[in-house]
Amino acid sequence: MDPVQVGLLGLGTVGGGTVNVLHRNAPEIGRRAGRDIRVKLASVRTLQSDRICDTSAIELTTDPYQVVNSPGIDIVVELIGGDTLAKELVVQAIENGKHVVTANKALIALHGNEIFELARQREVMVAFEAAVAGGIPIIKAVREGLAANRIQWLAGIINGTSNFILTEMRDKGRDFDDVLAEAQALGYAEADPTFDIEGIDAAHKLTILAAISFGIPLQFDKAYTEGIGQITAADVTYAEELGYRIKHLGIARKSESGVELRVHPAMVPERRLLANVDGVMNAVVVHGDAVGPTLYYGAGAGAEPTASAVVADIVDVVRVMTSDPEHHVPHLAFQPNALSDIPVLPIDAIKTAYYLRLYADDKPGVLADITRILADQDISIEAVIQKEPVDDEPRIPVILLTHSVPEQRINAALKQIEALSSVNDKVTRIRVETLN
Amino acid sequence: MDPVQVGLLGLGTVGGGTVNVLHRNAPEIGRRAGRDIRVKLASVRTLQSDRICDTSAIELTTDPYQVVNSPGIDIVVELIGGDTLAKELVVQAIENGKHVVTANKALIALHGNEIFELARQREVMVAFEAAVAGGIPIIKAVREGLAANRIQWLAGIINGTSNFILTEMRDKGRDFDDVLAEAQALGYAEADPTFDIEGIDAAHKLTILAAISFGIPLQFDKAYTEGIGQITAADVTYAEELGYRIKHLGIARKSESGVELRVHPAMVPERRLLANVDGVMNAVVVHGDAVGPTLYYGAGAGAEPTASAVVADIVDVVRVMTSDPEHHVPHLAFQPNALSDIPVLPIDAIKTAYYLRLYADDKPGVLADITRILADQDISIEAVIQKEPVDDEPRIPVILLTHSVPEQRINAALKQIEALSSVNDKVTRIRVETLN
Repeated sequence: MDPVQVGLLGLGTVGGGTVNVLHRNAPEIGRRAGRDIRVKLASVRTLQSDRICDTSAIELTTDPYQVVNSPGIDIVVELIGGDTLAKELVVQAIENGKHVVTANKALIALHGNEIFELARQREVMVAFEAAVAGGIPIIKAVREGLAANRIQWLAGIINGTSNFILTEMRDKGRDFDDVLAEAQALGYAEADPTFDIEGIDAAHKLTILAAISFGIPLQFDKAYTEGIGQITAADVTYAEELGYRIKHLGIARKSESGVELRVHPAMVPERRLLANVDGVMNAVVVHGDAVGPTLYYGAGAGAEPTASAVVADIVDVVRVMTSDPEHHVPHLAFQPNALSDIPVLPIDAIKTAYYLRLYADDKPGVLADITRILADQDISIEAVIQKEPVDDEPRIPVILLTHSVPEQRINAALKQIEALSSVNDKVTRIRVETLN
Repeated sequence: MDPVQVGLLGLGTVGGGTVNVLHRNAPEIGRRAGRDIRVKLASVRTLQSDRICDTSAIELTTDPYQVVNSPGIDIVVELIGGDTLAKELVVQAIENGKHVVTANKALIALHGNEIFELARQREVMVAFEAAVAGGIPIIKAVREGLAANRIQWLAGIINGTSNFILTEMRDKGRDFDDVLAEAQALGYAEADPTFDIEGIDAAHKLTILAAISFGIPLQFDKAYTEGIGQITAADVTYAEELGYRIKHLGIARKSESGVELRVHPAMVPERRLLANVDGVMNAVVVHGDAVGPTLYYGAGAGAEPTASAVVADIVDVVRVMTSDPEHHVPHLAFQPNALSDIPVLPIDAIKTAYYLRLYADDKPGVLADITRILADQDISIEAVIQKEPVDDEPRIPVILLTHSVPEQRINAALKQIEALSSVNDKVTRIRVETLN
């Protein structure tokens, strides 16, 4: 089958990331979608420019209308942002019968009702996973994964810049203005950070989440919006004293009287997972009447996390475009004739660090015996805890934390350690997973 | 359009939950799917039995083959568990051209390769979201939401019983056997808990997650499996001293040499979100090359959380069965003619608790003035922090935490407080969100 032809509007951070992900992971993506995806044409501001992606196989144009009007393009991916030119281009693409994928939260929050109605008339898809919480598949989770539920409420950290600033204020006791200046220098915050720190960006995303959760039209103009500018380092400290963390949340809740739609700083009990989402990361809690609380966490911005969502939408569109049975979502995610025969490794070949607990005689030389056996297997030790003897118990607990080592070598060492007369005959062993 | 006719195999905990969710949320589910869903027939062990759901509109039979052979049934939902009779029934249903939804992890992990091949030949869908991590839409997230990624590794708390036992051991310093007995008494653990605590249940789920992440066939027999029986209360304490929590993890990782597929206790750094997933809850971290780390959290078992996943699968099947354009996933999750006009509430009508920070003169009567104003607005106070005066600063910080109150009343109170000559003229106010 011919490759699906994609046209990009914009080839900046997210556009470049999309080209890179489609190129680097072409085999995996093709194995999932059952069809190749090719970026044929992209509109750019200037033809001469440094880019993060290779454009040698892509036709470039400075006229974005060429992308939406080109008969060879199946899917238009809108990544230019804003809600004026972007809207005209998206409307034109739909009028031309093209499917649209967009990462543009302002466009959807402000003009989504109109755009979706037009898409229905023209029988094309408009997908916008990347518009909310970057790479987290939150639109899909709410719209499809929780389709059984009456969604009761949701609350999310959906602006990475605000969360980065609040995290820094907490970790380092710094004040708002100070951290904002650094965030701008690091590129986390825009030169004009108004949309981020005043909560407008979060309100765009919340508007979209509320619509898909409660089955209401998009109503950005009804959202209450308050930023983090008023929070001081002292507030962060007092909140901690009371057992809370300050987070900038978007909250939507359905009650009998109506829908709450609000973005503002909030104190969250410190043991909640949401209170522990730090830095530029995003997370959304969604509470359904059947499923209870669920949480979705990941990177909310950045070239490749956003590209991850854009490309997932493209794959969804490809699957629907190609609607014979083989192009449904494959059972095991990849097309059945594309499964790989890479081997599953034996546990012996796994490499991790280890926690070891043993009981040893409380006499000189025992720890030396143990550490020599470990050294012989080239196992280095990160920490040792040797407990005081308890009452007249002749053996004392010894806890060792090793550096990373193949399981085979730990097994060999443990066999020797367990054979020592000064040590109990079964050492407890727990693998350490840093989840990095 | 006629309702879709569903036949249930099994009407126990998950079957009853599925009937209850489909009935209670029928309007919302219909608004999403664009078509009504009706449970027509269910097979049960005995006709006379106490059930958690109303069965007055459902034909009951003790012959499960009647469900899979009935010409009036479009979708068979398999909820009897095990991998012998369940397999025969699912195969028969597919042979009869029926779509299948199942919550059966053993069935998929052990016989999925064969079942999916048969389903492809017969051009029917087999959906199994409920087989892994209950209500968390993890299959959908990995298979569709992360379709752009080369998945590098995943690690999950995917057995609620083991996580409950480890959480209790940590919180209360209790030993394994003691907590297990309680978990059995509470109904969290089966009378025969072998599958849970020896990691077999987790290995079934991990086998499925690894297949859809890496594009490999299901290979349960290659999984390494180790339970939590060896962990003592002392290990839990020592782990904390070292800055770790002990969690029972399923881990799958792809390296150049092969795929790691292993279930065992693991030490996780205490600041990781996964280390803070407690009790019977499940969570899975999935790391993709484009998106980076993502995490999915929710209830991993129970009647309605599992039913949430079963019904989401039914809705997916209905959307594909009814594959004209109106039955694609609707843009806003609900069919466009089914959006509701429930109002968005003004922020004044929202009710939350409040953190208030103000600066007041350090003299008698000021706090009395403030608390009287709050009392007049019927606002009760949960905590007050009054800081020591700093140097010759005439005003001291006063922090108040209120109970829940409509925003309108806080606004009225703050207007009066800010008018006091003994208080600074702008009180900082942060809403408290307990996320309950």
